[in-house]
Amino acid sequence: MNLRPVVLKLGGSVITEKAKPLTPNLKAVKRLAEEISDAKVTPLIVVHGGGSFGHPVASMYKIAKGFTNKGQLVGFSKTHEAMVSLNKIVVQSLLDKGLPAFGMPPSSFVITKKGRIHFFQEETLKQAVETGLIPVLYGDAVLDVDTGFAILSGDQISAFLAVRMKAERLVMGVDVDGVYTADPKTDPSARLKRHLTLAELRKMKGQVGGATVTDVTGGMLGKMSELITPVAQGVNALIVNALKPGNICKALRGEEVIGTRIER
Amino acid sequence: MNLRPVVLKLGGSVITEKAKPLTPNLKAVKRLAEEISDAKVTPLIVVHGGGSFGHPVASMYKIAKGFTNKGQLVGFSKTHEAMVSLNKIVVQSLLDKGLPAFGMPPSSFVITKKGRIHFFQEETLKQAVETGLIPVLYGDAVLDVDTGFAILSGDQISAFLAVRMKAERLVMGVDVDGVYTADPKTDPSARLKRHLTLAELRKMKGQVGGATVTDVTGGMLGKMSELITPVAQGVNALIVNALKPGNICKALRGEEVIGTRIER
Repeated sequence: MNLRPVVLKLGGSVITEKAKPLTPNLKAVKRLAEEISDAKVTPLIVVHGGGSFGHPVASMYKIAKGFTNKGQLVGFSKTHEAMVSLNKIVVQSLLDKGLPAFGMPPSSFVITKKGRIHFFQEETLKQAVETGLIPVLYGDAVLDVDTGFAILSGDQISAFLAVRMKAERLVMGVDVDGVYTADPKTDPSARLKRHLTLAELRKMKGQVGGATVTDVTGGMLGKMSELITPVAQGVNALIVNALKPGNICKALRGEEVIGTRIER
Repeated sequence: MNLRPVVLKLGGSVITEKAKPLTPNLKAVKRLAEEISDAKVTPLIVVHGGGSFGHPVASMYKIAKGFTNKGQLVGFSKTHEAMVSLNKIVVQSLLDKGLPAFGMPPSSFVITKKGRIHFFQEETLKQAVETGLIPVLYGDAVLDVDTGFAILSGDQISAFLAVRMKAERLVMGVDVDGVYTADPKTDPSARLKRHLTLAELRKMKGQVGGATVTDVTGGMLGKMSELITPVAQGVNALIVNALKPGNICKALRGEEVIGTRIER
């Protein structure tokens, strides 16, 4: 068996209704489960974002700012529990298609340091993949050795896993067609970049440093920045619109699809 | 801060309606959350059993027998998901009392070997305790290096944690008053044993070896057998009826309570 997995990230804005707290986009989740089933890619690791589940609670208790007072502890747990609820919906949809999806909360086996992955216990994840399960991880409230706790994004997890598990491919499903030359939501002259090189990716990351920089990629600078390490290590990454039917199935199979391909 | 935790095991027959699939005993769960809150014991680690959540699914897919066919993979996941649902109920009840309960699924950080704990990643658990959270673990379907997967009981986890975390006290909440001289459910002459020594515990374990042995403790031989290692290492264990109001609060505080005390 080929044990180089495909890593699939499903954005929070794809699987939830971002404007409505604690509301999944059930139609999208069910369709995506069907596409994943149709793609028949194995081994596969799925990571999903928080969308309207994790973010409102995390924000209310200022979890991303780290531990400042004991009252936040309950908020930490509530943020995690909101994500458990979303994960159950994703896992159940995959199970409904006969796929052996297996929910794995990062907070149980990852510790960050100033928000970056510091400790990642991979034994159970690897064992799950070898057993034939499809691990389903997610952005989560996690413990942090420096700041007490932190928010670990699904993007960071996906990029980390792609490197650590030597992924054959990293597919990032988002709610736009890919990376643009300008923000497509505000600038009609914006054009989709079909290919990005590592050098271009690094140049974009340079922009993140600036204090008042405008995110010309349409909110994707953070994602771009996470992709540098896996792409530098030879993982092919693809950013694709997961809200458009058929895209994720094609992307998982490595077939041609509209999106932004990022290669070393 | 004293970092020797109290470990509290809540039996599946206490927190669920054992005869009704997927039915929590909400009244008991809520009362227990209140008792845990009143006890003000810190640090605390809670472990709960599966009762009518985990057992029916695990049994349907023969998860305890290990991996024999791919169809079981979905059953493995469903068993785990049933336990996630029960864990959410327990965690939510504790959160409702203002306690920072933090659900941690053993399947994400424990691997067994022929059903016994073989690998246990404790970093996140320890970090959670140090941060001030109350980890809530549970009996779970877990990966097994020999048999593919296995059922890891809440009893085994509690006993393991009591040793590994150098617990100050191990409280086992069950649906009877403790260990009896005979099965109290069938034998009216059965008397409650208020104290058990390590030697007596070992003698009972000897009975487990026999092929046609009758479990004279009223179904508690397995539990007794798990308690040998922690008691041998100096952990004081107490078996107490968690269905009788007030018992768990007293037991957590180390106050006098009707039950079976097991000491080296």
